[in-house]
Amino acid sequence: MTVLDRARKLAVPSARAAREKDRTAARALALVESEIAGRPRITGAEFGGSYPKGTWLPGRSDIDIFVRFDVSAPRGEFEDVSKEVGFAALKGHGPYTRFSEHPYVEAEMEGTRINVIPCYEVEKGKWKSAADRSRFHTAFMKENLTSTMRDEVRLLKLFLKNNGVYGAEISRQGFSGYATEVLVWNFGGFEGVVRGMAGIRRGQVIGTAGKEFDTPVSIMDPVDPLRNLAAAVSVESLGRLVLLCRGFEKKQSASYFVRRKLRTSEALLRNCITVSFRHEERSPDTIWGQVKRAASAVGQQLMMAGFTVARSGAWTDGRSRACLFFLLESRSIPEYTVREGPDFFGGDDAERFAASGRKALAVWVGGSGRVMSMERRAESDAQGFLRTLLGRGLDGSGVPRGIKPDVKRGFAVAAGGSRLPESVKAELLELVSTDAAVFPSR
Amino acid sequence: MTVLDRARKLAVPSARAAREKDRTAARALALVESEIAGRPRITGAEFGGSYPKGTWLPGRSDIDIFVRFDVSAPRGEFEDVSKEVGFAALKGHGPYTRFSEHPYVEAEMEGTRINVIPCYEVEKGKWKSAADRSRFHTAFMKENLTSTMRDEVRLLKLFLKNNGVYGAEISRQGFSGYATEVLVWNFGGFEGVVRGMAGIRRGQVIGTAGKEFDTPVSIMDPVDPLRNLAAAVSVESLGRLVLLCRGFEKKQSASYFVRRKLRTSEALLRNCITVSFRHEERSPDTIWGQVKRAASAVGQQLMMAGFTVARSGAWTDGRSRACLFFLLESRSIPEYTVREGPDFFGGDDAERFAASGRKALAVWVGGSGRVMSMERRAESDAQGFLRTLLGRGLDGSGVPRGIKPDVKRGFAVAAGGSRLPESVKAELLELVSTDAAVFPSR
Repeated sequence: MTVLDRARKLAVPSARAAREKDRTAARALALVESEIAGRPRITGAEFGGSYPKGTWLPGRSDIDIFVRFDVSAPRGEFEDVSKEVGFAALKGHGPYTRFSEHPYVEAEMEGTRINVIPCYEVEKGKWKSAADRSRFHTAFMKENLTSTMRDEVRLLKLFLKNNGVYGAEISRQGFSGYATEVLVWNFGGFEGVVRGMAGIRRGQVIGTAGKEFDTPVSIMDPVDPLRNLAAAVSVESLGRLVLLCRGFEKKQSASYFVRRKLRTSEALLRNCITVSFRHEERSPDTIWGQVKRAASAVGQQLMMAGFTVARSGAWTDGRSRACLFFLLESRSIPEYTVREGPDFFGGDDAERFAASGRKALAVWVGGSGRVMSMERRAESDAQGFLRTLLGRGLDGSGVPRGIKPDVKRGFAVAAGGSRLPESVKAELLELVSTDAAVFPSR
Repeated sequence: MTVLDRARKLAVPSARAAREKDRTAARALALVESEIAGRPRITGAEFGGSYPKGTWLPGRSDIDIFVRFDVSAPRGEFEDVSKEVGFAALKGHGPYTRFSEHPYVEAEMEGTRINVIPCYEVEKGKWKSAADRSRFHTAFMKENLTSTMRDEVRLLKLFLKNNGVYGAEISRQGFSGYATEVLVWNFGGFEGVVRGMAGIRRGQVIGTAGKEFDTPVSIMDPVDPLRNLAAAVSVESLGRLVLLCRGFEKKQSASYFVRRKLRTSEALLRNCITVSFRHEERSPDTIWGQVKRAASAVGQQLMMAGFTVARSGAWTDGRSRACLFFLLESRSIPEYTVREGPDFFGGDDAERFAASGRKALAVWVGGSGRVMSMERRAESDAQGFLRTLLGRGLDGSGVPRGIKPDVKRGFAVAAGGSRLPESVKAELLELVSTDAAVFPSR
């Protein structure tokens, strides 16, 4: 049996698992339908996501139930009524509210997570809420994916998932389930996708684009020629997929379909700094976006202060605890630094530069004709720098406004990983690790 | 009395000093002339340099006596016979041989250094030896400098000398006496030169050029339209003069005509490294060229290895002792370093990069799409690096071939300045000092 045959066994649910999923799905839909009866603005309920398309993976696969509202429904009613429906229908299964662009209701039934999500019943292209397009995605894939292609989608999902590039959420910035389907539909199957992505060129457009995009690669939504599915994919995720595909083309291995292995360098941990703080709860997309932007802004500030940031990362448990991570070339930088000023031909610029170097220990004309100086740095220790930046320097730090009150209430700066809780340390370790599937050891 | 009037008093010899100089000069010329009689290939002897032009400074000003050879004289005879003449003429004054492009004889007579230098009596432009052009320089300046201009040359020489930019020798790379005369002749006087140099633009040509030069500024030899006197001037010297002139324009001060003052930062000495070695004696231009090129090459190697070289310098006592000096941002650099590889779109390049990083502790796809790695440096201590480079790495170090045998016999690498002899330490201190006239303190 080939590597791919064995992988398909893992990716495609057994007939029994499929029957069980069908039973749960039908039961959940019936519960929702019984609750929408008599609500004039609701026009019906239907399955969305991977379940109706037959592209779901064995194990914990969600079932999405879309509650359709008439376009005349005001936004407030759309949100409130769909929540009422969700809570009522799933009351026996511990429902709770979750947030993406708008709130929706989630609960667990027979080991499967059920999501009750509102959408507007719009004409194609006239999207009013984030979920409106999904119904058209479902319809498109039901019509266009053959039964073989559905299993190829599952195979690709397994490949992406086990290599950390599956999922469009902002914490991951990988490939969504729908993007996976679009790739298989475009390239015909798993091996077609591998070949296509292994040989991809900068600027390549997969599908037909209705306008130009500035992402390195565009993956067009066949339902909406103005929508580029690669816009939600980070350059890192795209690059990792491309390198994974090249590796897999060279040597097919079952290891690509099991959870990725990391080669970790504990030695590099000494060069890591973690900024920890507590935050108020908000929707996952919001808080993840904020901590990621914070990590990027603080990394920029470190670079501008002379530190070399090799990698940075952000993490939140989604409720109250967040961290920014930085892997530095060194936690301390030289006490003095060379500053390059203007060319001496530049008129008064040279004199102004020489006069501006208040901390200059020496000023001279360099071999390039530029005025140079050697100055004492304001701060040569990264932890000290971060404490100042996030303390009295917070306003000019570039940390997103929404997260500033959280940081203001308190933060901790720690070096290495020794004093971090295990769950946080695991996240930090990503920074000092090599993904063995993307970069096979030599 | 203005600053300039007072400075002229320092720059122009007294009537009595001039009479004494004339007497010594006449005596020396008579001695040389008595020796050339009866030597068929020698056509005569005459004064050269600043003495006949009347641009010499009080104090120890040389008197150059040129011994003219017929163009038919073979090079060997030209050198040997001129030495014979020099030694015989100056035998009462302790003559010895010196070298520039060719050997010449030097001795001291009545407190003045006398140089007996051979040249060929060529037609203008048909130069055969380095000194042949000088006779035309002398003739040009005798004809074109007014008596006032001669004193303005002296004033400019004093200004250049006391600010460390006088002298075309390779150890200095400043302005030669002739270049000083050319500047005054072009700009009319000292203040004209100051104004002209203060406002100079990149690419400006002073005089009329017979071809293009790639020096930042060209100072044309009025005797030879193909000769750019600025070619021997370093960018540093040019830049220093420009900044000095701008400063003097803003505020005329007597301090510009006394020995320049340095503001030294002893703290920066800790960041200095000195490589010392002994060398065989050779002509000053040769050894200075070699140690300067060595300092530049070794500085490059330090940079490539990750060290930040703020300033470098070279020094030799002209006989046996040489040093290379380096002012570093820090004498040690981080143990690990980030390496930026190719973009993942670049086909096999990315894989090759990842596979080539033998010392990589972590490899990943960066946010820019480039493959990145964190590696252990081969050497993080500058002294250790230099010992290896100049030891077993000497052949690939870029150190000039002529100096390698000297370095091979042994060298010492030392940090700071504490263990250096005072004369060497004085040279090293230049690296950690600011010239107060060029960069006035604030």
